[in-house]
Amino acid sequence: MEIIMIIVLKPSATPEEIQLFTDKLSSDYDVRINRWDGVHSTVLGLIGDTHTVDIEYIDAQDIVESVKRVQEPYKKANRKFHPENTVVKISDSVSIGDGSLHIMAGPCSVESEEQIVEIAKSVKKSGATLLRGGAFKPRTSPYAFQGLKSEGLDLLKIARKETGLPIVTEIMRTEHIDMFENVDIIQVGARNMQNFDLLRELGRTKKPVLLKRGLSATIEEWLMSAEYIMAGGNDNVILCERGIRTYETYTRNTLDVSAIPIVKKLSHLPVVVDPSHASGKSWLVEPLAMAAVAAGADGLIIEVHNDPPHALSDGAQSLTPEQFDAVSKKIFALKNALNVDT
Amino acid sequence: MEIIMIIVLKPSATPEEIQLFTDKLSSDYDVRINRWDGVHSTVLGLIGDTHTVDIEYIDAQDIVESVKRVQEPYKKANRKFHPENTVVKISDSVSIGDGSLHIMAGPCSVESEEQIVEIAKSVKKSGATLLRGGAFKPRTSPYAFQGLKSEGLDLLKIARKETGLPIVTEIMRTEHIDMFENVDIIQVGARNMQNFDLLRELGRTKKPVLLKRGLSATIEEWLMSAEYIMAGGNDNVILCERGIRTYETYTRNTLDVSAIPIVKKLSHLPVVVDPSHASGKSWLVEPLAMAAVAAGADGLIIEVHNDPPHALSDGAQSLTPEQFDAVSKKIFALKNALNVDT
Amino acid sequence: MEIIMIIVLKPSATPEEIQLFTDKLSSDYDVRINRWDGVHSTVLGLIGDTHTVDIEYIDAQDIVESVKRVQEPYKKANRKFHPENTVVKISDSVSIGDGSLHIMAGPCSVESEEQIVEIAKSVKKSGATLLRGGAFKPRTSPYAFQGLKSEGLDLLKIARKETGLPIVTEIMRTEHIDMFENVDIIQVGARNMQNFDLLRELGRTKKPVLLKRGLSATIEEWLMSAEYIMAGGNDNVILCERGIRTYETYTRNTLDVSAIPIVKKLSHLPVVVDPSHASGKSWLVEPLAMAAVAAGADGLIIEVHNDPPHALSDGAQSLTPEQFDAVSKKIFALKNALNVDT
Amino acid sequence: MEIIMIIVLKPSATPEEIQLFTDKLSSDYDVRINRWDGVHSTVLGLIGDTHTVDIEYIDAQDIVESVKRVQEPYKKANRKFHPENTVVKISDSVSIGDGSLHIMAGPCSVESEEQIVEIAKSVKKSGATLLRGGAFKPRTSPYAFQGLKSEGLDLLKIARKETGLPIVTEIMRTEHIDMFENVDIIQVGARNMQNFDLLRELGRTKKPVLLKRGLSATIEEWLMSAEYIMAGGNDNVILCERGIRTYETYTRNTLDVSAIPIVKKLSHLPVVVDPSHASGKSWLVEPLAMAAVAAGADGLIIEVHNDPPHALSDGAQSLTPEQFDAVSKKIFALKNALNVDT
Repeated sequence: MEIIMIIVLKPSATPEEIQLFTDKLSSDYDVRINRWDGVHSTVLGLIGDTHTVDIEYIDAQDIVESVKRVQEPYKKANRKFHPENTVVKISDSVSIGDGSLHIMAGPCSVESEEQIVEIAKSVKKSGATLLRGGAFKPRTSPYAFQGLKSEGLDLLKIARKETGLPIVTEIMRTEHIDMFENVDIIQVGARNMQNFDLLRELGRTKKPVLLKRGLSATIEEWLMSAEYIMAGGNDNVILCERGIRTYETYTRNTLDVSAIPIVKKLSHLPVVVDPSHASGKSWLVEPLAMAAVAAGADGLIIEVHNDPPHALSDGAQSLTPEQFDAVSKKIFALKNALNVDT
Repeated sequence: MEIIMIIVLKPSATPEEIQLFTDKLSSDYDVRINRWDGVHSTVLGLIGDTHTVDIEYIDAQDIVESVKRVQEPYKKANRKFHPENTVVKISDSVSIGDGSLHIMAGPCSVESEEQIVEIAKSVKKSGATLLRGGAFKPRTSPYAFQGLKSEGLDLLKIARKETGLPIVTEIMRTEHIDMFENVDIIQVGARNMQNFDLLRELGRTKKPVLLKRGLSATIEEWLMSAEYIMAGGNDNVILCERGIRTYETYTRNTLDVSAIPIVKKLSHLPVVVDPSHASGKSWLVEPLAMAAVAAGADGLIIEVHNDPPHALSDGAQSLTPEQFDAVSKKIFALKNALNVDT
Repeated sequence: MEIIMIIVLKPSATPEEIQLFTDKLSSDYDVRINRWDGVHSTVLGLIGDTHTVDIEYIDAQDIVESVKRVQEPYKKANRKFHPENTVVKISDSVSIGDGSLHIMAGPCSVESEEQIVEIAKSVKKSGATLLRGGAFKPRTSPYAFQGLKSEGLDLLKIARKETGLPIVTEIMRTEHIDMFENVDIIQVGARNMQNFDLLRELGRTKKPVLLKRGLSATIEEWLMSAEYIMAGGNDNVILCERGIRTYETYTRNTLDVSAIPIVKKLSHLPVVVDPSHASGKSWLVEPLAMAAVAAGADGLIIEVHNDPPHALSDGAQSLTPEQFDAVSKKIFALKNALNVDT
Repeated sequence: MEIIMIIVLKPSATPEEIQLFTDKLSSDYDVRINRWDGVHSTVLGLIGDTHTVDIEYIDAQDIVESVKRVQEPYKKANRKFHPENTVVKISDSVSIGDGSLHIMAGPCSVESEEQIVEIAKSVKKSGATLLRGGAFKPRTSPYAFQGLKSEGLDLLKIARKETGLPIVTEIMRTEHIDMFENVDIIQVGARNMQNFDLLRELGRTKKPVLLKRGLSATIEEWLMSAEYIMAGGNDNVILCERGIRTYETYTRNTLDVSAIPIVKKLSHLPVVVDPSHASGKSWLVEPLAMAAVAAGADGLIIEVHNDPPHALSDGAQSLTPEQFDAVSKKIFALKNALNVDT
């Protein structure tokens, strides 16, 4: 991949130092070097397969004032090199990124067979095409409920058998990858978006991965984490915007709705939105879901609980099955209107 | 207005100190005091017209660990005390907040009579019901074009006469209020959201005010600035979400789409959205405008320029009249679909 | 001033479009254009007096993917063009930026003659060399105490007469500049850092200006606001770091201690630090003041109140005179140790 | 541990609903319930061992408007329950938190035996009492150098043998804990601060853990992550402030110097500061290190490389041994001056 780097040298750099530096760059790397001399500054441009040039190496040189890459640092996730949309096939009837809208619905935590099967049947009836549910739960307090773990995975599979809905659930450590073999989409949570060992191992599988954006990850860092998975040969990556951390305290996070069109421009990967975690409040799920679909999201992941006040986690942001049914109707009506429109 | 304050005392507070403090509160203010004694902490609750109690006063006391107000600090802008929506009437045919969708369109800066009249006619044809345009421009560089000033106001009035579109334009200092007498909506920019003297003076008029959210203003601070205007007797306040400052650098600001349903819940004031400034990129205007409408916005304010590459300011985020026409069609189609839906 | 701009063109740009664009740039501006052709991208470099080239104009062109200025956008505030430190002379004995450390101390609000004179005498005894005090107060609530206004200015002058301490106080609107004629340092608050009209008018005076950093202003924006004042011919600008808005809620703001060495590198202007507003908590004033001095601050501005629990504003962050005396001793001991060290 | 929760009920809650809710709370939990009735709102206060009450459960109830815990959610890390400072003993001569200042110095990445031994000897001579060096490197790009891994650990041990300096190095996954058996301080990086499985496993060892603050972690979340480790029985936790993510782009991160006195007030754990990662620029290391020590840090962790321009990672922020020697002298001179002072 051709890369261009722009290097601004310090005004104090002498002609000899500049010569030495450009000679060194030429001999070390397979690049062409362009040079502009202004009155105060000299600017170098490197063109070529600068992929091997560590930008930190350049930045650490004494005569360098600043250095910038012109291109994005990701390749496999980059739409420039892969113009058509990636479609992640989950089952015969579910493909994410093919233009249709998919809703992944279900409880924050799997709590019992009865609970998960009941919710699965209900959300399916309301239009959801995938079942979400947490078996391993990342909790900020060591004293809070941490999920049913492997038993939770078994219960999800029972619910899948009962309803036919593919299942989406979160992995928390590399050693569990085998245990997730039979899961349809493996979710990487926001707190693990830069757990690079986990990403690398998932890259060695062919499993669809739902990669949540980190709490304070830039769009570029998020796509670099997708690149980690794809670099290993696994192209089945679905991005998930779930709100970012800002100074605003009214909502748990701030949904970055702009991220939807931006990642669709920069990357060919599908993007789904999690309005439940983005807001932390059930009454905000509907307007945020509507906004996400209007902005072009390929799917939504929504928390639904048959008894939110008794949910073992995240009750405050869960919809009841009745609420979900109403929201789902509006969402699909909106999607249909948008399709007619285009 | 009844207010409740929760005061947590330091574990080190002695019974005598606590007694002294509660006696003082009782004698100074017309409040009831509730007290809970835990093993480690004592908590006081103040109920009554604690409006007169300065929270900073409490917080400064030696024995106080923390103090929190339970209610919102704004009254006139608060939906609790004014449940029905405020509708701001601009002209016979334009009322903001009445359930219809209004688009304010036009150039960042007014540049010439020809320019503003041409754009006004064009955006009107495409469905805009108000004309926006800057006469006084706040620019981060003292060396950049600062607007045509009073001449710009005159040109806007000519464009209004030609098209019938009410005009929206930004004020930058208190002394100019008289000069803005004949403007239909006076805009307060993000950088002036906490220019309290300006807000107070606008409160003494009856002019509709478009109050942009500050770059790093919380929703509460934004509503407090609305309260400043309303406290003077001017209820014609329209809120405008225009993106907030976050760590993400891909967009100029991050559109906080959640703010739309939130201010509509907390307040009775109408809210419009500025997708042009929120993103700083013209290709993001459409998806962000769609998201804003789907989330419940009462209106949009969009930059349109007949020749963006030669715009004297903000060309990069301006739509051409043709682009605006296409975006406008989609927006109104979406609004219609949402109306059918509900 | 020579400026360099780097323009990256879209991969889709045709040779003809590129030619047209560079011809236009050459004819419109007095610049040299360098061009590099990569496989996927073309990069243009503009060198010359590109000062007149509006970066937004470039960014708005259809064939442009991105554009970056290489140099800082400020000139008069830039150390590159003014290598020696600016020293702002306030009185015969007080010069800010000359290597000595100055403490501006006093109450958030001026409340009475007795109060301000008593505090002034006390802080002077403890080593403060300037008196701070608010006469016009920017308050987030329209219902809170807004300061004694012009009467407050008169009381400050009385305190100055009694103690000889120069006075620092905040201006809130352009029309008040004449009223502040006899003030020693005019403070521009964080919320007015981008009140460009106010900055421009202050640039027409020769008054020392204490320019606080905006709540979410980048260092570059802050220096651009200094540039506004200096562009008018007033070089007496003192920068004041007072904490920035972040996601952390424990403190009111987050003191950006790095800003001290950074503005001293980028600019020749002196910088003082406000640990009281940065934290909002009186017990944090000492450690933050110590950190600021160790990082190279030229001065501190600290809130001191003879009766914090009854202060009309900001009591929670005010030191008592006794606390201030102890903190001041530590600060000057630290400054002395640092002087010995270097 | 006694906990107090404040629950504000919705104005719409009926007396019957309130009764039902308080009855349920009383029967489910061992708590006392206080109730205040205002005109518009009812407030409940829960006192008792509300530790078992999930705040999310309360928040999810229909009649609840908001709920707040009054106390901090961490116990073992809380100074209230452990007033004296924790001192983490690393070796006979190195104890972190005992009032002395310790500098952990060394390269970002271990690159060769020669490199690490040379740097170790050099930093020891300059006053460092611990050796830092990365064997497993978390890199944002899958194509960047990822560290020498277990070989790097071996090289660190050789350097320890040669110099006697205890070693600090980063762990990236749970399965590696055995491999880190012989390391003196195990570092948990910012990106793993909420890798709860890793924290839990480290809690089962007795190894000193250097817990870096996450890029956008609040102080409370950081202390909750310490609590995860301590809940397992490992009290040897050292906190490390390394800059947080803000909107400011001049530095890689923004050093939150206030965090030093704050965690020392809230917790009994020692705190060290990483000025190298906080700024990303070697020339900022000195002023930030000075600020950190003046604000009360127990130690510093500083990147030193014998040949920064050829460092395999983070060269731009590394000091040369000569620069480190000069900075170290200033730091210890400052520490001595502070000791005299107190």
